Amino acid sequence: MSLLTETIAAIRPADAEALAAAQAHQAQLTKPAGSMGLLEPTGERVAAMVGEFPPPVPDPVALAVFAGDHGVQTHGVSRWPQEVSAQMALNIASGGAVVNAMCRQVGADVVVVDVGLVPELPDVPGLLRRKIASGTGDMTVGPAMTEAQVHAALEVGIGVARDLVARGTRLLLVGEVGIGNTTPAAALVSVFTGQAPAWVTGYGAGLDDAGKAAKIDVIETAITVNRASAADPIAALAAVGGLEHAAMVGYLLGAAALRTPVVLDGVIACAAAVVATALAPDTVDYLIAGHSGMEPGIRAALAQLGLRPLIDLDLRLGEGSGAALAVPVVQASVRMLREVATFASAGVSESPDGGTIEGGPGARPEAGQEQQR
Amino acid sequence: MSLLTETIAAIRPADAEALAAAQAHQAQLTKPAGSMGLLEPTGERVAAMVGEFPPPVPDPVALAVFAGDHGVQTHGVSRWPQEVSAQMALNIASGGAVVNAMCRQVGADVVVVDVGLVPELPDVPGLLRRKIASGTGDMTVGPAMTEAQVHAALEVGIGVARDLVARGTRLLLVGEVGIGNTTPAAALVSVFTGQAPAWVTGYGAGLDDAGKAAKIDVIETAITVNRASAADPIAALAAVGGLEHAAMVGYLLGAAALRTPVVLDGVIACAAAVVATALAPDTVDYLIAGHSGMEPGIRAALAQLGLRPLIDLDLRLGEGSGAALAVPVVQASVRMLREVATFASAGVSESPDGGTIEGGPGARPEAGQEQQR
Repeated sequence: MSLLTETIAAIRPADAEALAAAQAHQAQLTKPAGSMGLLEPTGERVAAMVGEFPPPVPDPVALAVFAGDHGVQTHGVSRWPQEVSAQMALNIASGGAVVNAMCRQVGADVVVVDVGLVPELPDVPGLLRRKIASGTGDMTVGPAMTEAQVHAALEVGIGVARDLVARGTRLLLVGEVGIGNTTPAAALVSVFTGQAPAWVTGYGAGLDDAGKAAKIDVIETAITVNRASAADPIAALAAVGGLEHAAMVGYLLGAAALRTPVVLDGVIACAAAVVATALAPDTVDYLIAGHSGMEPGIRAALAQLGLRPLIDLDLRLGEGSGAALAVPVVQASVRMLREVATFASAGVSESPDGGTIEGGPGARPEAGQEQQR
Repeated sequence: MSLLTETIAAIRPADAEALAAAQAHQAQLTKPAGSMGLLEPTGERVAAMVGEFPPPVPDPVALAVFAGDHGVQTHGVSRWPQEVSAQMALNIASGGAVVNAMCRQVGADVVVVDVGLVPELPDVPGLLRRKIASGTGDMTVGPAMTEAQVHAALEVGIGVARDLVARGTRLLLVGEVGIGNTTPAAALVSVFTGQAPAWVTGYGAGLDDAGKAAKIDVIETAITVNRASAADPIAALAAVGGLEHAAMVGYLLGAAALRTPVVLDGVIACAAAVVATALAPDTVDYLIAGHSGMEPGIRAALAQLGLRPLIDLDLRLGEGSGAALAVPVVQASVRMLREVATFASAGVSESPDGGTIEGGPGARPEAGQEQQR
């Protein structure tokens, strides 16, 4: 049995008993029911993921940044030169990128994984050299990758998740670097959500309207030429994906198989999430949407997954920066379940209606429930 | 000269030179311009507040929770019994409330300040006993407070901010507890923004539609009976405010006078902010909007202040919980300015257009600028 098959077979739904215990406890905490909004279902979901109540505050935290290059960049789908992918991978490995500052803020380790950069990178600390190929092929004339390359990339991602969890990591973050990689991401979101490319394609890191229109044309052509369909997820991923996208799919599957919460970042991570859930639907139980963002593919993917993002700061950087900024919110959601006094223990009066206050229509008690699958 | 007069006189606009230096440096960091959204103007604003570039990452952090009771609660404007104010103040002082868990998550100290609870509280650690009165009067029949009480409460708030900064605090958070206190908050927002009570009044901690309608009636009556007007801020605050609201106004003024960033919480803090800026307009330069929330008064107040909230998690608890959750975002915004490599230092290529990429129309480079006054 391949590592991929074994991993998918190991993915089980999150624990309903731990979820119920967390929900019951939440209702007794000294606060109006629902008053902590999205934090409430987030903490309850973490309990369900790890299968215990109360769950430990998820820590240590690690971010894996998967890096790759893209044949489709010959069409100029990004205004940045391709060499920037490798430069930024090295910048992250040496601690100098934005995502490193974000991870230092929240106490997360960072590892960069070269799964598909064009140049050969030096052997430096913080960089895992797991190159499958020197970039992908041009998806407008055929599949970006072979299915063998996809399998290899998936297994790199699974391996990275396994290694991080084996060394004690309890909260996984996923990020990426790769000039042009919002193009395959939008293509994957289109194929796996059924939304037209024009609806899920954004401006990436600085296109103008003409550039975006050309990017949509490229995506439409690639989907048509390759007859990409969600009915065959691996073939679709090979056709219009990227090596880092494939590795991220594996990473999400690996996290789910190990019952470890994993925080998504922007549109590339969200694209990986819709592919991963096509391969193993219960994977969604282990996913936390880190942030909303400027790319429309994020909204389309999260709507399909039924996840609400924790952070919305108009980020459009990638690298895992939005996932990192969501870490304190995830940890706080668990702390709340662990550390807050109950009405009984604190001697605080409940409402005169008896029981905890449920809130009026305007309190929208259902608002925080959307992420609670 | 009174402490209030002295404090208002000390409030100066934030430093334009430090702001310009931060903006110039931001443009050289290894990321597309604007790609970190709202983090970018936040970090730049902190530089302007403290008047140096690069600013230190703001730490240590402390939250002051101002507590009071409200005569208007005789009209049942909250479904919770008034005794809960004091019970929750003690719960917070002993570390058992939601906001304590949030503050432990982000490394913030917590102090509770009794400025106007009805009962006499015991002398316990974590509680400052600064009671001005045992609750306010019923604002539907006359002013909630005397102007002398307002002055005393303002000076309590100024004193708390001074003490916290004197002991080294570099980021102030503001929160509150007080059953019924969204009613005076909505009244203040109405008076100081000119929006009708019906537009700025919410469901508080669990009203139904009928309860909200009655709350709006109470607010309309109070504003009319007292002829409350923004033209005389102190009189308006006395008429339809609360003791904790007044102390929070003082705290914001005190922070601004000491050039110390202060993070707002929900509708009560936002109400205090519109009063503080009526007394000293430059105060706004030192305010950071912590979170959006369920109370419509938050939006009205922040729109008038020109501030965008950092967090939006459907919170409706108060206590300072939303301010606490914003702390890592504020600190990360400064870390970014301090720690991220520049294109030159990291040897990363800039865009072929020359200079940093400005983004297309969809990149909405202006989106992150709203908070940058």
